Amino acid sequence: MYSKRVERLIQALRCMPGVGPKSAQRIAFHLLERDREGAREMAEALVDACENVRHCERCRMLSDDALCGICASSSRDAALMCVVESPAEVMAIEQYTGYRGLYFVLMGRLSPLDGIGPEELGLDRFEQRLEEGEVKEVILATNPTVEGEATAHYIGELARERDIRVTRIAHGVPLGGELEYVDAGTLSHAFSGRIDFR
Amino acid sequence: MYSKRVERLIQALRCMPGVGPKSAQRIAFHLLERDREGAREMAEALVDACENVRHCERCRMLSDDALCGICASSSRDAALMCVVESPAEVMAIEQYTGYRGLYFVLMGRLSPLDGIGPEELGLDRFEQRLEEGEVKEVILATNPTVEGEATAHYIGELARERDIRVTRIAHGVPLGGELEYVDAGTLSHAFSGRIDFR
Repeated sequence: MYSKRVERLIQALRCMPGVGPKSAQRIAFHLLERDREGAREMAEALVDACENVRHCERCRMLSDDALCGICASSSRDAALMCVVESPAEVMAIEQYTGYRGLYFVLMGRLSPLDGIGPEELGLDRFEQRLEEGEVKEVILATNPTVEGEATAHYIGELARERDIRVTRIAHGVPLGGELEYVDAGTLSHAFSGRIDFR
Repeated sequence: MYSKRVERLIQALRCMPGVGPKSAQRIAFHLLERDREGAREMAEALVDACENVRHCERCRMLSDDALCGICASSSRDAALMCVVESPAEVMAIEQYTGYRGLYFVLMGRLSPLDGIGPEELGLDRFEQRLEEGEVKEVILATNPTVEGEATAHYIGELARERDIRVTRIAHGVPLGGELEYVDAGTLSHAFSGRIDFR
């Protein structure tokens, strides 16, 4: 009943996160009816990225070359290294903060039950970078989840062993948020993590 | 800062409906990190569909061949022709009803302001099919929106001119719906369209 090719396309589109059978169908019909040009460009971009995008050798960020743009830049402060879980977080930090140091992208978080240990996160590479001696401060920016916190502790230990300063980004009440609606964990964290008011 | 290829991919993914910059980024990172195999298959399916999927010559449904599976089938009742706006609606009718007739897919609805008139909806082809004399009943299944209703009226007129029976699918309170929560238009439609209770 379906066109076999349309059905194949609908099936293939479902490999995207958050795309179920209904959305896949909607996307397929939209592309075929209204934007074959866009669909072709999408196909090309997918193939190009799959063939050529790899991990930066220094920070594990997605990169076109051996070193990513940030690691290759001479204008970044090599004494600062911010540890994040994923490339999306690098994007957010670059976009919204004035951070000018380097990164280390874990591509995940410690999760022994899923078989994700220090090796999977490239922590051997991370220790090697600490050994090189350039890094003076490790900024832990893993997510404030149970696993993210465990990962932060583990990594913090690696840095402390080498007498490198370790900091954690602040967690608390978000700007514009109302105390009344903030969850218990965040609010108690905001109190225990209070700082001098200037 | 970004990888150029990743940036190109994110941009390309935005041609899908409902995919904004954030989702495009999420999809790109997911595919590159976790499912390059799926991404490659998606690219192939896109190219294959773009090159080879066309419109059925009889009903305008998306099809691999000159005639779609439904029009080519000998087990369908050629006396019934159901008019719908899009391929997704054919899918829904095939899946959820026992309808065994044929279709005519408008690929849109009359919308003079957007420059969509009878020609854009292939109504010359539609009239030709009526002229062939096989069709005994036209079932109007355009959406119950202002434009869908206008389209239904226009098409109904074409069939009536040729003394062909015209029916409209029933609109009213959906099954499992509660009268209390049904909108005014639907409820008044349900009353004016009441039928004998058997």
